[in-house]
Amino acid sequence: MKNLTSLIVAFLLFPLMLTANDGYKLWLQYYPIESAQNWQKNVLSKVNIYGEGETIKIIKNELELASSGFFNTSPRYTDLSSSLIIGLKNEIPSNLATRVADGLGEEGYHIFSSEGQIIVSANSSKGLLYGTFRLLQQVQMQEAIDEEGIVEIPQVKHRILNHWDNLNRTVERGYSGFSIWNWHRLPRHIDQQYIDYARANASIGINGTSITNVNANALVLTPYYLEKAAALADAFRPYGIKVYLTARFSSPMEIGGLETADPVNPEVQQWWKEKAEEIYEYIPDFGGFVVKADSEGQPGPHNYGRTQAEGANMLADALQPFGGIVMWRAFVYSEHTPDDRHKQAFNEFVPLDGTFRDNVIVQVKNGAIDFQPREPFHPLFGAMPKTPLMMEFQITQEYLGHDTHLAFLAPMYEEVLKEDTFVNGKGSEVAKVIDGSLHDYPITGMAGVANIGTDRNWTGHHFHQANWYAFGKLAWNPWEKSEKIADDWIKLTYSTDPDFVAPIKKMMLQSHEMVVNYMTPLGIHHIMARSHHYGPGPWVTGGGRADWTSTYYHNASEQGMGFDRTANGSNALEQYAQELQENWGNLETVPEKFLLWFHHLPWDYKMKSGNILWDEIAFHYQKGVEEARENINTWNNLSAYVDRYRYEHVLSFLKIQAEEAEWWRDAVLLYFGQFSNLPLPEGVEPPKHDLEYYMNIDHKFVPGI
Amino acid sequence: MKNLTSLIVAFLLFPLMLTANDGYKLWLQYYPIESAQNWQKNVLSKVNIYGEGETIKIIKNELELASSGFFNTSPRYTDLSSSLIIGLKNEIPSNLATRVADGLGEEGYHIFSSEGQIIVSANSSKGLLYGTFRLLQQVQMQEAIDEEGIVEIPQVKHRILNHWDNLNRTVERGYSGFSIWNWHRLPRHIDQQYIDYARANASIGINGTSITNVNANALVLTPYYLEKAAALADAFRPYGIKVYLTARFSSPMEIGGLETADPVNPEVQQWWKEKAEEIYEYIPDFGGFVVKADSEGQPGPHNYGRTQAEGANMLADALQPFGGIVMWRAFVYSEHTPDDRHKQAFNEFVPLDGTFRDNVIVQVKNGAIDFQPREPFHPLFGAMPKTPLMMEFQITQEYLGHDTHLAFLAPMYEEVLKEDTFVNGKGSEVAKVIDGSLHDYPITGMAGVANIGTDRNWTGHHFHQANWYAFGKLAWNPWEKSEKIADDWIKLTYSTDPDFVAPIKKMMLQSHEMVVNYMTPLGIHHIMARSHHYGPGPWVTGGGRADWTSTYYHNASEQGMGFDRTANGSNALEQYAQELQENWGNLETVPEKFLLWFHHLPWDYKMKSGNILWDEIAFHYQKGVEEARENINTWNNLSAYVDRYRYEHVLSFLKIQAEEAEWWRDAVLLYFGQFSNLPLPEGVEPPKHDLEYYMNIDHKFVPGI
Repeated sequence: MKNLTSLIVAFLLFPLMLTANDGYKLWLQYYPIESAQNWQKNVLSKVNIYGEGETIKIIKNELELASSGFFNTSPRYTDLSSSLIIGLKNEIPSNLATRVADGLGEEGYHIFSSEGQIIVSANSSKGLLYGTFRLLQQVQMQEAIDEEGIVEIPQVKHRILNHWDNLNRTVERGYSGFSIWNWHRLPRHIDQQYIDYARANASIGINGTSITNVNANALVLTPYYLEKAAALADAFRPYGIKVYLTARFSSPMEIGGLETADPVNPEVQQWWKEKAEEIYEYIPDFGGFVVKADSEGQPGPHNYGRTQAEGANMLADALQPFGGIVMWRAFVYSEHTPDDRHKQAFNEFVPLDGTFRDNVIVQVKNGAIDFQPREPFHPLFGAMPKTPLMMEFQITQEYLGHDTHLAFLAPMYEEVLKEDTFVNGKGSEVAKVIDGSLHDYPITGMAGVANIGTDRNWTGHHFHQANWYAFGKLAWNPWEKSEKIADDWIKLTYSTDPDFVAPIKKMMLQSHEMVVNYMTPLGIHHIMARSHHYGPGPWVTGGGRADWTSTYYHNASEQGMGFDRTANGSNALEQYAQELQENWGNLETVPEKFLLWFHHLPWDYKMKSGNILWDEIAFHYQKGVEEARENINTWNNLSAYVDRYRYEHVLSFLKIQAEEAEWWRDAVLLYFGQFSNLPLPEGVEPPKHDLEYYMNIDHKFVPGI
Repeated sequence: MKNLTSLIVAFLLFPLMLTANDGYKLWLQYYPIESAQNWQKNVLSKVNIYGEGETIKIIKNELELASSGFFNTSPRYTDLSSSLIIGLKNEIPSNLATRVADGLGEEGYHIFSSEGQIIVSANSSKGLLYGTFRLLQQVQMQEAIDEEGIVEIPQVKHRILNHWDNLNRTVERGYSGFSIWNWHRLPRHIDQQYIDYARANASIGINGTSITNVNANALVLTPYYLEKAAALADAFRPYGIKVYLTARFSSPMEIGGLETADPVNPEVQQWWKEKAEEIYEYIPDFGGFVVKADSEGQPGPHNYGRTQAEGANMLADALQPFGGIVMWRAFVYSEHTPDDRHKQAFNEFVPLDGTFRDNVIVQVKNGAIDFQPREPFHPLFGAMPKTPLMMEFQITQEYLGHDTHLAFLAPMYEEVLKEDTFVNGKGSEVAKVIDGSLHDYPITGMAGVANIGTDRNWTGHHFHQANWYAFGKLAWNPWEKSEKIADDWIKLTYSTDPDFVAPIKKMMLQSHEMVVNYMTPLGIHHIMARSHHYGPGPWVTGGGRADWTSTYYHNASEQGMGFDRTANGSNALEQYAQELQENWGNLETVPEKFLLWFHHLPWDYKMKSGNILWDEIAFHYQKGVEEARENINTWNNLSAYVDRYRYEHVLSFLKIQAEEAEWWRDAVLLYFGQFSNLPLPEGVEPPKHDLEYYMNIDHKFVPGI
């Protein structure tokens, strides 16, 4: 029998190695478990599922996919002596039901073991689906379920992907091909990819998706597109995912034939009410609107001298009868005001605190500038106790090297979430704003700007799948640890072998800091190339507005560099709590990672390391390059653990990254070197070309714009 | 042992059914062969491959993929008692070599069996690759190799895909997503998809690819893009595939800084010579240029009062030292001449016969208008005995319903190729122009406008993979039969089970005629919607030029409809041989499929069926609708043979097609009914809406423009 088993195992594994793995299956690989323990083998063998309906069918399908992948068997469904019981708390036998944790709410679940059985229970089929995915993850990761089990309740209510996808299928800041929404074929063709998208999201607890670009096209609110959006909503519904749309503020004029979009105009208000009613006819559980107004040329209340609250409330009133919400983005900055952009959202929104409708949540980017590789948390967090604020993270890597630069973003997200705002004293972390606990927010949310496209592996870089995954995990629980997220993702996606997991986890956890090192160390920011933001552009200057240039942000001269945001400068610092003003405003205490974000300093400023600023900057760039090179070695050493296709793909991207890290280092150091007039310190490699060479690089048709 | 085998077989088949088959593997499925015969099991068991190099490695890789797929085993390589010998004629043992057919040339191959061995031999490694693919196809199709074996020699030298792909990755007339060329990642990332693209092409004998749009961007000829194109050429080379680029005629001005692009200007000539030299530094085996000049706004020799020959020859002179060729498109029509477009290419090119350089081949669309669902062959075929002409077929379905309409195009290609031009008497078929035999052409070629995009299955509709396949087969041998092509493709892609093959083949072979029925029966043409050509638009009229409207082509009025191309009309007929003028010019003898192409006839014209013209038109539209509906039944009945993903995808597209066939029928009959003033005959369903409804349909962001 042993020989037979080995033969079968050999038969099973062989195609796995040879067959192309294009990464489409994401972290739902369900790859064979070679030395399964009894509990793993048993758990899917005899399954008793209570209830029926679309979501229950999905649960069964998922069990079948997993069972086939893990063990090449199919689960048997039975209501006798089952090994796995999946059912609502009020459906399963009472002796088990009494053991199910209280307070699971609408989305939580409890998985536990009892006398050789495993029980997945919840108060809703959606909770059961979440629990099933979690159970399957535990099986793949070889982590047993004990009697106490796993109780999971999401800490954030709205966990939403924001797709910046245009109706012509281009994706703004999208680097993984084009939009997966084939509007032309909708509503009549529901592609399997939409289903797999929903599966992937449900498996990490994402419960909403805004499917159109925040730079919105009003056409999406016409029946022609609503019918298409409704088809997607129908496909996503059984996975517990609601559809949201972006609302262009000027829609009443563009598709409604009105003369104005003034939010206090009764006709405009009426138009939006009727529009909301129409949308709900197509999508009865429509989630609501995401709105970018008064920002980068988008229309908004400013056009009529109205406040952001007046704009948001008009939409909120229209959605309110149907239960929809408005996610009103705080990324508002004036076309005219020459003030530090860092301060503008705060100045505009804080006075409005408490004036928004109950179904409005203000969506705030993690930092005040624009998704830089590193930013201090946005000063709005903690500053609007009477207005729910939600987090907007960027999963797509607009300013982090686009598709080819490995940067595991969980540590960046975690850094922001764990920062202490001090607004209610020590322990007022940003995460407590987001989970609502700091200000008792009635609604909570987290949005992630998706990095998903038509690339066969969804995200361009195979490792950028981990950022989608990480966003989901942190949206579910803002206190989740990056290390745990990386660990799980690696095991689900590649292998549980510790010899693989450990070095890959190390590589991932260091990768964001590595990118900061070779792009924007020590608080430097916004020195990317103009418009597409691909590659270095510290020389970018001039043009329509100063705050779209690099020179505005780095202020390099022979006197030094950095953006003075202390009281001597823009005083953006005053928007933070007193503790932070003192901490970050003081050169003795400011973390060096934020040094040049808040301070303008001379080139010979003495760092904690003993190096002068110029040398320290140069060392950071060099370090980033060396780390990028080291990743190639790490990956090469692990080729035996990875199928050939994913291996080659990642290797090729790691090589591009190492090359572009050099590009960044050489271009930036040559540029700033003009001002520092100092030589590169020993240990920093001399640039390969002169500054002019780098300034003349002109990439064509860079994706994402 | 039997039980063990069944167990293993069960293990093998189970995942096949459950695993998603997204169609990526095309006709190279290499799916398990369930009841393999001895020769099949043996052939890949012990393999002796002579020689080495990149192409030999590819052959080995392909054998491994196939062996794994067919039998879940790996081939063993040995030089002793092998079951399969693959080697050049001058490398294999002389007793076998003497049996290899003569005259295989550079690309032919011979596969035969001898004493239990199978031998694949050729004069080049490329021939061996072609032979290997063919052998694997025979194994999959369960068709044994006998002692005489298979001798295959391509009948056409240049077998080329034309990608109308733009540098921003949009695809003109592309309906399967976006361009698979990720220019941004090139040259540093060679995606597996490029390799699989090359594999697929080599497996059907395609040996060239023009990777950029004929509406060309001169930038592709700059070093920035040449480096990228060279990376693709490097990837394709071992598969025997050459890269071609489209040359924008005005490039010397746009990227060369010259004041003119006049082909007789020495500076312009010198610029192209240097440009050619530069290209060959990047791509030593660069194939040459594809040129669209003086057509639809593209620059060309007309701009300088020069002939097409002067334009083509200038480029040919530049390429000649390096062995490159110019494929100069004959799709030239004046911005000014109000003459029937049908006649313009003929009038412009025939007088130039014999004046083109030896390395110019004129690329002629199958018909004189523009890739209509049905056109008579282009009158240029046969009319330029001293100038090599190549065929340009459209694989992408610009005028045939785009992505969602199943239309197997081999019968359309075959119909054109088998037409007799009569220019050298009976038996002067178009295929003899294309294979060069009619006029002893020194170069021959066939181009197919690709239907390939980023869709996970490459071609949008799963069945449109068959059109790529069919193009390759007909380019290799213009005498190949549609039925054989369909039969093989079905077996390679889905199943050899006759209960599946027969109905699917029937469906495929009828599908082109079905589309003609519900779009443009009886010689009706060019009545698609404006610009994007998606859906019916017989009412399209007005605008800049008459020959971009529908009314120009159908001439419907109360007196009847049709385009009079007899001597009473445009007399395009006179461009054909006398036999055809008589045959097609005479209402008694003209095939009814070309009736309204050449004749304008009253609504009550009596057809051979006894019906009047109006009724006959209506019956054709109705028939097309019924056929489209019937395909849904056919497919539904065969669901057991197809994996769930491809089954659902195809089903969804067949439903769209049936719905759009109705749209075509109703819109067109309502429109023409205004003029015929006749009721719909019995048996034709009444339209669902009124004409205004159909005229107001306004699809947004239709792909492909």
